[in-house]
Amino acid sequence: AHIPFMTERYSEEDMVKRSKDFYALLNKRRSIRFISDEPVPREVIENVIKAAGTAPSGAHTEPWTFVVVQDLETKHKIREIIEEEEEINYMKRMGDRWVNDLKRLRTNWIKEYLDTAPYLILIFKQVYGMFPDGRKKTHYYNEISVSIACGIFLAALQNVGLVTVTSTPLNCGPRLRVLLQRPVNEKLLLLLPVGYPSKDATVPDLKRKPVDDIMVVI
Amino acid sequence: AHIPFMTERYSEEDMVKRSKDFYALLNKRRSIRFISDEPVPREVIENVIKAAGTAPSGAHTEPWTFVVVQDLETKHKIREIIEEEEEINYMKRMGDRWVNDLKRLRTNWIKEYLDTAPYLILIFKQVYGMFPDGRKKTHYYNEISVSIACGIFLAALQNVGLVTVTSTPLNCGPRLRVLLQRPVNEKLLLLLPVGYPSKDATVPDLKRKPVDDIMVVI
Ligand SMILES: Cc1cc2nc3c(=O)[nH]c(=O)nc-3n(C[C@H](O)[C@H](O)[C@H](O)COP(=O)(O)O)c2cc1C
Ligand SMILES: Cc1cc2nc3c(=O)[nH]c(=O)nc-3n(C[C@H](O)[C@H](O)[C@H](O)COP(=O)(O)O)c2cc1C
Repeated sequence: AHIPFMTERYSEEDMVKRSKDFYALLNKRRSIRFISDEPVPREVIENVIKAAGTAPSGAHTEPWTFVVVQDLETKHKIREIIEEEEEINYMKRMGDRWVNDLKRLRTNWIKEYLDTAPYLILIFKQVYGMFPDGRKKTHYYNEISVSIACGIFLAALQNVGLVTVTSTPLNCGPRLRVLLQRPVNEKLLLLLPVGYPSKDATVPDLKRKPVDDIMVVI
Repeated sequence: AHIPFMTERYSEEDMVKRSKDFYALLNKRRSIRFISDEPVPREVIENVIKAAGTAPSGAHTEPWTFVVVQDLETKHKIREIIEEEEEINYMKRMGDRWVNDLKRLRTNWIKEYLDTAPYLILIFKQVYGMFPDGRKKTHYYNEISVSIACGIFLAALQNVGLVTVTSTPLNCGPRLRVLLQRPVNEKLLLLLPVGYPSKDATVPDLKRKPVDDIMVVI
């Protein structure tokens, strides 16, 4: 069944102002790798995930699971798995080029935020689903859909003044899936530690491309 | 160089309210396939793209290009390419299962919005970049990064009351890349027609999963 669609309509002046303000808010977002252990209300996290869950998805499959880890022991186990694999990544698996590219960002395999952040949010993509009768249901474009949901998640988080770093724990997916008891149709896409920034948090002094480098008008 | 990071800090009460309001705003978003030809201020589109450009990206590669098509003739050529390819997709390339899955959404290969929407925004992923000396620069996780930027784009658009449908013109990438004269390192990821909804726009009566189906707390 199809139903009428209604939406808010703003004046042109309001649209310009709202678009400017939203850009200004989001332009303050940075990836933060120093996260305070101060507690954060669970309700806020739940609303941020609900916002992410409004994302579009290929054929409305909604192929995402957000695993929110607040248990200290589980967070520490996640840290152990990630640091073990990352050390191997840096030392053995990756070429010098990758290590060089990342040097500027001063990331390394010691990730204290995995213990300190009040929440670790692991975003899984469901690469296929199940019909009630047990047949597999293809999830078209599942990775793109889940990444779009992550973009909305980041906007929602910035809007409440919390921080994260969008991270991709290379080669850790299978072990983390087992640790968190997720089914075999789910694969880890991203890990986002969420909280307030530490008092002395710093960020690399990066610049963003000017709009003329990312936008072409025809 | 690393620099101190500063951010807005809200009271817990404010955080809860802001997170609720943001969810309520985004929960009204729907994919709209009936778009009015009323003009939309260019400045708003530019700000929405600037917001998208604040997205995180693997190793800060910012691997996105937003091509904004407002020229009527180019829009029509895009429509011709897409309808041609989509008809072949529906008729020949795809299994019955896919056609069935999409039937519920009543999409088909006639896409009037490609002519009527004041802007067609084609989002390209840069699968690699170039160093000044001409060597190729790997763009880690380019598709995830660009999809995250698209999620922020959708949030920014919803915030100004404009609509779109996140679409993936299957098999049209190469022809559209040539039409829009984009370089070979760019591949079409998504096409978003942007404007106001038509007066009589309808949407499929879909429901979203409840939060307990997408969130797990440990
Ligand atoms: C990666 C992706 C690809 C999509 N491709 C198409 C498409 O080619 N054509 C279309 O009409 N809708 C497309 N959609 C829109 C979905 O059908 C839509 O998001 C879904 O049915 C949920 O509806 P909603 O966006 O109104 O919540 C796509 C969405 C995503 C995220
Ligand atoms: C798909 C993706 C993967 C990323 N992986 C990591 C990661 O594993 N570790 C990390 O510290 N940062 C990671 N980042 C964060 C980027 O390094 C960061 O977004 C980029 O340097 C730009 O900085 P900004 O987010 O502060 O604007 C990732 C970002 C994206 C989008």
